[in-house]
Amino acid sequence: MNSSAIRFLLGHVLAIEGILLLLPAIVGAFYGENSGLIFLLVAAVCIILGLLMTRRRPESNVFYLKEGCVITALSWIVLSVFGCLPFVISRQIPSFTDALFETISGFTTTGASILNDIESLDRCMLFWRSFTHWIGGMGVLVFLLAIIPLSGGSNINLMRAESPGPSVGKLVPKVRHTARILYEIYFGLTVLEMILLIVGDMPVFDAVTTAFGTAGTGGFGIRNDSLMSYSLYLQWVVTIFMVLFGVNFNLYYLLLFGHVKKALALEEVRYYLLIIVVSVGVIFIQILDIFKSVGESLTHAFFQVASIITTTGFSTTDFDMWPETSKTILVLLMFIGACAGSTGGGIKVSRFVVLFKTIAKELNSYIHPKSIRKISIDGKPVEHEVIRSINVYFITFMVVFSTSIFLISLEGKDMVTNFTAVAATINNIGPGLELVGPTKNFSGFRDFQKHVLMFDMLAGRLELFPLLILFKPAVWKEMLSKKA
Amino acid sequence: MNSSAIRFLLGHVLAIEGILLLLPAIVGAFYGENSGLIFLLVAAVCIILGLLMTRRRPESNVFYLKEGCVITALSWIVLSVFGCLPFVISRQIPSFTDALFETISGFTTTGASILNDIESLDRCMLFWRSFTHWIGGMGVLVFLLAIIPLSGGSNINLMRAESPGPSVGKLVPKVRHTARILYEIYFGLTVLEMILLIVGDMPVFDAVTTAFGTAGTGGFGIRNDSLMSYSLYLQWVVTIFMVLFGVNFNLYYLLLFGHVKKALALEEVRYYLLIIVVSVGVIFIQILDIFKSVGESLTHAFFQVASIITTTGFSTTDFDMWPETSKTILVLLMFIGACAGSTGGGIKVSRFVVLFKTIAKELNSYIHPKSIRKISIDGKPVEHEVIRSINVYFITFMVVFSTSIFLISLEGKDMVTNFTAVAATINNIGPGLELVGPTKNFSGFRDFQKHVLMFDMLAGRLELFPLLILFKPAVWKEMLSKKA
Repeated sequence: MNSSAIRFLLGHVLAIEGILLLLPAIVGAFYGENSGLIFLLVAAVCIILGLLMTRRRPESNVFYLKEGCVITALSWIVLSVFGCLPFVISRQIPSFTDALFETISGFTTTGASILNDIESLDRCMLFWRSFTHWIGGMGVLVFLLAIIPLSGGSNINLMRAESPGPSVGKLVPKVRHTARILYEIYFGLTVLEMILLIVGDMPVFDAVTTAFGTAGTGGFGIRNDSLMSYSLYLQWVVTIFMVLFGVNFNLYYLLLFGHVKKALALEEVRYYLLIIVVSVGVIFIQILDIFKSVGESLTHAFFQVASIITTTGFSTTDFDMWPETSKTILVLLMFIGACAGSTGGGIKVSRFVVLFKTIAKELNSYIHPKSIRKISIDGKPVEHEVIRSINVYFITFMVVFSTSIFLISLEGKDMVTNFTAVAATINNIGPGLELVGPTKNFSGFRDFQKHVLMFDMLAGRLELFPLLILFKPAVWKEMLSKKA
Repeated sequence: MNSSAIRFLLGHVLAIEGILLLLPAIVGAFYGENSGLIFLLVAAVCIILGLLMTRRRPESNVFYLKEGCVITALSWIVLSVFGCLPFVISRQIPSFTDALFETISGFTTTGASILNDIESLDRCMLFWRSFTHWIGGMGVLVFLLAIIPLSGGSNINLMRAESPGPSVGKLVPKVRHTARILYEIYFGLTVLEMILLIVGDMPVFDAVTTAFGTAGTGGFGIRNDSLMSYSLYLQWVVTIFMVLFGVNFNLYYLLLFGHVKKALALEEVRYYLLIIVVSVGVIFIQILDIFKSVGESLTHAFFQVASIITTTGFSTTDFDMWPETSKTILVLLMFIGACAGSTGGGIKVSRFVVLFKTIAKELNSYIHPKSIRKISIDGKPVEHEVIRSINVYFITFMVVFSTSIFLISLEGKDMVTNFTAVAATINNIGPGLELVGPTKNFSGFRDFQKHVLMFDMLAGRLELFPLLILFKPAVWKEMLSKKA
């Protein structure tokens, strides 16, 4: 294990967090909030620690997938631990566990909150809370790749460990350029949403934080009622941008460079849109009874479907009161999730496309045992290794999911709360049903259960394995013994 | 497709059902019930139809896995359709849908009932209802293999399609002998249980039907309160036999022929027993509060765990009133199920053993990418093809499961009812929670939902693919065109 490279990169991550923490400090200064100074303090600590850790260059620049995974997992833990300090020090979230929960929920773009009164927080705190979504959405290490010159080809392993989806396509031959292009698209779309929100008379502060929450598919709102009290226009802008941020970013890359035909042919995106249209259709019909107006029903149906499938988790209405079928659809969408290569969570549409094709192939093999037709996506055959890893991913997901449900159930809450609490965290959505429904929050869980859910949020965002291998003693032995 | 062999074998299945229907007719005569005559009538119809269909021998004796699957699926449907006629004709279950539900539930050894008042049925009807469990437990086609001389090696495909578990081991070189040995063990254990129940002062009729329900891991009781009103001794006898019938029958074969060491080393059986012990332990502690007595808590915990993991579904208490964790454990056990090669349902312990080993191997591959250690069970490496098919099985299971939940939710019942109704039918258990809890039944569903659940019961018992391929138009085209 290349421990010195791990140390070096973790140092960079800390230093970057220090710099990012200056933004809420500026916001605090702008609004004249004393708590803004706390961000300065924490930023200083991060930057100093980061500089100390990066003073000595690593002995070797080469690292493999295991180092990529370990760095990724540790980075996200370090980011969250330091990122929660302003909440604790300012006593705006006095409990460390709660503050850590809120911060992990932010970075992992989950948006599950333990706050009963969001509006009581200072502006700089609210800004940082939403900003963590934006940082977590594209990934800190991808950002690192975009700005820091790292050695040769091995850094694809970093990107592979942090990026969502079954396989990481480099858009361009160099990982560094790919990372930069991704961040440029991300930045551009976020600014565009801010502008459209401000044009629709949303206060600038609200527009900025809402855009962060949408872009990272996070879902932290700055009001206690999420987005319920905003105008129809604003709700539709957010709806459309949620859908856009749930799309595989390859699409935008292809569009930017004029490959329109190729972009429109992307199978994953087409299925993603199809699922949205069908779900909206069924729910729309079901909730017509509740809202009485076609427009309102359509707005709520579309908003909520987009919010859940992209794993954002904003809400404009209490969907826990909707009919069973609509709720069941929303729960199923939680697991499907957004496209690979987007900022969304869940199992990802492309994995399901491959899984369904695997089933079709299996059925076919009963009839034509000698057929050796390969599964293909976008016209290209899918490597056997990719299919295998998707299978294993799905199975591991279910095992982590079931284990979490069991651990959460120890507290004795009802089954729907337990089930949807785990579903909403491991898929990085935010709200679930019943006691964790859209008008409620996660403050009612005990500390042990909160830790399980924090694990689930990280496991979901990092796609399980980078986090799980930290539980293998062999990894720690290797890391501490400094052997390669 | 070898349609003539399908016709020929279906004819045999019908004829056998006709002969089996004579047993409840005898029971009816013994108790002087007029409804017993209906069994004679249906038996006659089955036998005549069966003879007509088997008059002409098939043009070819060769059939492949696809024929094996089609025969199996059609056999079970035909068995159920004719098997439900006595209920309908006698008007003891007037609705055809309900009667079919009850019969499929019987043959698939599910034990989910639509009857509000079980005790109002005639004895011959109750006998037939429980007898279907016994027939379905080991499988009709396995029975067919044991008694009818079929051509060469291709009939392993029949056994493969009907037997539970990921891979069918032939105990002895000849399939026919294997089938016979399995039935002898099955018959022996059933009779042993009957004797032990009768010794414990259970009425003979109760003992026979209860033994049928235990042996097939079915779970139909003949009393409205399932097994709640029987003595402690009887409850323990049933508990132990449930566990025994959930064991891989290979164990008994090995024991019978003196391979004790090999028998004790069977990995699947050891995990199966481990899961039982741990689950009983946790539930025992949790329900101590409810029952106040160590003995009673232990009896209920052990009975219920055995009943659910073996997918039998008998109950001695209303476990829907137990604490959340205990209920969650029971729901998880529903999915695990019994051992492969037993009469139990569920996903099967051996599949989970392989799945867990796959996850461990995947984690390991992150650290040692070049390692090529194979997964092994009982010291033997598991073929790559078997692992692949287990992965696909698990995925297909989840897809069928989710689709069913969605279809059931259209009726608007609560989520726990919907979830456990599907879990209890697709895993062939019987009772679920809430509206389908142990003191309630499935009569509250609409016809459409009942049909979905019937499909789930068959899909679970036949392990998905034999039933699913009936939905491929290509199969029907091939079958009707009579081409090979």
